[in-house]
Amino acid sequence: MLSIPERVLMGPGPSDVPARVLEALSRPTVGHLDPVFLTLMDEVRDRLQAVFQTQNEMTLAVSGTGSAGMETLFVNLVEPGTRVLVCKQGVFGNRMEDVARRCGAEVVTLEVPWGSVFETSAIVAAADAHRPDLVAIVHAETSTGAHQPLAGLGPALHELGALLLVDCVTSLAGMPVEVDAWGIDAAYSGTQKCLSCPPGLAPITLSPRAVERLERRAAPVQSWYLDLSMVRNYWGGDRAYHHTAPVNMLYALHEALGIVLEEGLEARFARHAAAHDQLRAGLAELGIDYLAAPGHQLPMLNAVSIPEGTDDKAVRRRLLADYGLEIGGGLGAFAGRAWRIGLMGHAATRRNVTLLLSALRDLL
Amino acid sequence: MLSIPERVLMGPGPSDVPARVLEALSRPTVGHLDPVFLTLMDEVRDRLQAVFQTQNEMTLAVSGTGSAGMETLFVNLVEPGTRVLVCKQGVFGNRMEDVARRCGAEVVTLEVPWGSVFETSAIVAAADAHRPDLVAIVHAETSTGAHQPLAGLGPALHELGALLLVDCVTSLAGMPVEVDAWGIDAAYSGTQKCLSCPPGLAPITLSPRAVERLERRAAPVQSWYLDLSMVRNYWGGDRAYHHTAPVNMLYALHEALGIVLEEGLEARFARHAAAHDQLRAGLAELGIDYLAAPGHQLPMLNAVSIPEGTDDKAVRRRLLADYGLEIGGGLGAFAGRAWRIGLMGHAATRRNVTLLLSALRDLL
Repeated sequence: MLSIPERVLMGPGPSDVPARVLEALSRPTVGHLDPVFLTLMDEVRDRLQAVFQTQNEMTLAVSGTGSAGMETLFVNLVEPGTRVLVCKQGVFGNRMEDVARRCGAEVVTLEVPWGSVFETSAIVAAADAHRPDLVAIVHAETSTGAHQPLAGLGPALHELGALLLVDCVTSLAGMPVEVDAWGIDAAYSGTQKCLSCPPGLAPITLSPRAVERLERRAAPVQSWYLDLSMVRNYWGGDRAYHHTAPVNMLYALHEALGIVLEEGLEARFARHAAAHDQLRAGLAELGIDYLAAPGHQLPMLNAVSIPEGTDDKAVRRRLLADYGLEIGGGLGAFAGRAWRIGLMGHAATRRNVTLLLSALRDLL
Repeated sequence: MLSIPERVLMGPGPSDVPARVLEALSRPTVGHLDPVFLTLMDEVRDRLQAVFQTQNEMTLAVSGTGSAGMETLFVNLVEPGTRVLVCKQGVFGNRMEDVARRCGAEVVTLEVPWGSVFETSAIVAAADAHRPDLVAIVHAETSTGAHQPLAGLGPALHELGALLLVDCVTSLAGMPVEVDAWGIDAAYSGTQKCLSCPPGLAPITLSPRAVERLERRAAPVQSWYLDLSMVRNYWGGDRAYHHTAPVNMLYALHEALGIVLEEGLEARFARHAAAHDQLRAGLAELGIDYLAAPGHQLPMLNAVSIPEGTDDKAVRRRLLADYGLEIGGGLGAFAGRAWRIGLMGHAATRRNVTLLLSALRDLL
């Protein structure tokens, strides 16, 4: 019998999953075309629309993890020769560039140092200069803990004929992500961050403007599995069989979204902000600094410098072994230099922050 | 709270999931790089090797459903100009052709009428004529219920310089799939058929010969998410972060594979065969015929002609509403003409067959 310890998950994801979600996950599997399940898919779409703050009809959960969500948007919105401006400020911006190139995009990149964010005017100027079809950017860069402001960007890009594609993997349900109000045309997320659902699904949403792009593609989508022209008919329309949906994972997402909406988005964002404030104050007392610029620190992903002389792996190993508590190491350019402390969804609590700060005080 | 009815799943998948697997699914989520989880991934690989009857080191579960397994093998083994011979005898052969073309393959197809299977000699002759790099075939065609014999094919293709790629989505763990003994170079399956695990993962295995092909590719793999050069390092080697594994789904697969191996492959195959014999005899009494040729009928997927004058949808609706019992409709060319009765994994029991036959007797 499988022996799994109970952890407190304060890394970059997965985050702690509420018992209600685990219970939903374990309901009996039904057929993926069972009327009961089709109703559930409709409700998942309605709830995702509420969390993404959008009316977009093409809102659904891709049958893969967050990275599959990224790939879904690129394979559908890019064909050979599509011009893409990728804004790179960390690992996930780099990944978007890689994915876009594999789709045959002509890629132009804009970069800022890790931990920084872009000025909206700089992005718009680059779009004006290069006239891309698509501009891709990460809202909450999980490798640096930096929060990229997005308000105002979408309308400016639309004037230049570009669509705005946003990575909301880490931000969704932990801070405002206003797809319609901000003019976002395509966004993807993952279930295992602030939605506090196990990893395995990638919520996405596409604006009517983005759907129009899909509909006038010349080349077939290079991925059969992620081809939205077929996936959309399975999620709506005639329910044409495409692939077998991950039935139980969708039970879990349905429940996780229900919990988010019961709490209310504003209350949930405030809870994340409060946990972040408590953590930041406590870390300051320990002399631990953030890597992201002040004023641009994500509430749910606290990327901090490892204090000098500290053994990164030894501390994380003791946190896990002695306290059952997981935090994340650095990624990419920050490997060995950073810790990434998640305050995501169900885990963003005073109890968890207090435990972590106490444990760090003991260990450092 | 999510209200999910208990069904008896006798369609083309998902199949009934044992309580032990549902329970494993609902264990607390841990980090995807937690030592406990890495050990579990190793055990999943060991168990998959046992079920695939292979020593292949590159054996793992792709983070998507069975169709993602298909796509994984094609995107990794095909690059523009790779010559692929696709054997088509139903929906899933057609799908392989579509996927191969999207990868830039030069595709040649070989076809037999739906419900038939290929003679090994015909495939070898076509391979001799066209000299493909890869030959793709479905072992258990879920749309027709036909069982394609594979013994002897691999070695003959190897002599011609071709790799053998096999779809084992429906057959794995329900009838012999001897990857090493049969000389299969690449195989994929799904969790929701005879493994009796919820849908969401795609077990795959690649022979050293196939891995060598991957290693001397010229072009990058067009899918980032499914690129085995990175996925393999996450499943073994240096455990480099690629994407976040579907943690809870892997708990479930671990348990489902444990159940398969506790029962023993031979006993499990015999149970499927016995349930099939009982069903076939009962259907014969009702005057219901199989679509696949005699001697080539799959034990776990019984595709049968709908008796003349019977209202397909009405019968299936009543089976579901009055008996809580799901069977599948026809797919593709057999839509409206066929029922597909699954006897997969946990569901291949005398109890289920008896229930279905009694219900059909009442309804017809």
